[in-house]
Amino acid sequence: MSFPERTTTAEIELGDTLRPKFDADGLIPCITQDATSGEVLMFAFMNAESLQHTLRTGKATYWSRSRRKLWVKGEESGNIQVVRELRTDCDQDVLLLKVEQSGPANASCHNGYKSCFYRRLVSRDDPAFRLEFTSQPLFDPAKVYKKK
Amino acid sequence: MSFPERTTTAEIELGDTLRPKFDADGLIPCITQDATSGEVLMFAFMNAESLQHTLRTGKATYWSRSRRKLWVKGEESGNIQVVRELRTDCDQDVLLLKVEQSGPANASCHNGYKSCFYRRLVSRDDPAFRLEFTSQPLFDPAKVYKKK
Repeated sequence: MSFPERTTTAEIELGDTLRPKFDADGLIPCITQDATSGEVLMFAFMNAESLQHTLRTGKATYWSRSRRKLWVKGEESGNIQVVRELRTDCDQDVLLLKVEQSGPANASCHNGYKSCFYRRLVSRDDPAFRLEFTSQPLFDPAKVYKKK
Repeated sequence: MSFPERTTTAEIELGDTLRPKFDADGLIPCITQDATSGEVLMFAFMNAESLQHTLRTGKATYWSRSRRKLWVKGEESGNIQVVRELRTDCDQDVLLLKVEQSGPANASCHNGYKSCFYRRLVSRDDPAFRLEFTSQPLFDPAKVYKKK
């Protein structure tokens, strides 16, 4: 399975065919959002193989740049993401997945939080750039991930 | 104004100080979300200068990679984004802005749509990869952007 080719700006931006742009490293950014609440859960990259795997299995599958391998989300922790919808942006160089976060802890972040975006800036004119936590972890990472 | 330095993984991931990671090109990805509805509006990049400008003015300001200049969102169309919250992810290499989209058309996308993510894949096993539109444009781009 390969993806339709990139054609004209008009076809890419206003057409009705998925024509994803993979960058020089073969990657496309992917934003993952909770399909029900709209909470942004995480941000990662896909390559063509991981996008194909996501579409074939219905489970969010990314490309791990650090481990240089296909990354089926939740394959280790059990906290998988079932894809409900896949969107692309105007110029089709970004993907947006709407998922149902599933599994024992219902969490996306390796630090145990539902979302990776668990901290916000307290004030935009704070010279110390302090962050405050907006949620509590749902699991203890030390107990879920095996030491390697 | 410069940002706090990157220190240890523990301080970056579980600490209470913003320590943004700018990549080799000096950029950090930024997801922008409607503060009220949670709709993901767009995805762009910031450099340190645009993040500083965003914090100082409270208006979302990106870095345009194509034009190689600071990009105050809406400076031409009037459709500005007022920042309500800034979040960062676990390893602080992505930003999430929650904004109030404002202006004459209340739209984020240069094609006239509220969100750049105005198309979704019809079915994940469709060999033609057809997209369907999920919304209508709010303005006519030809009437808003001056020819250059």
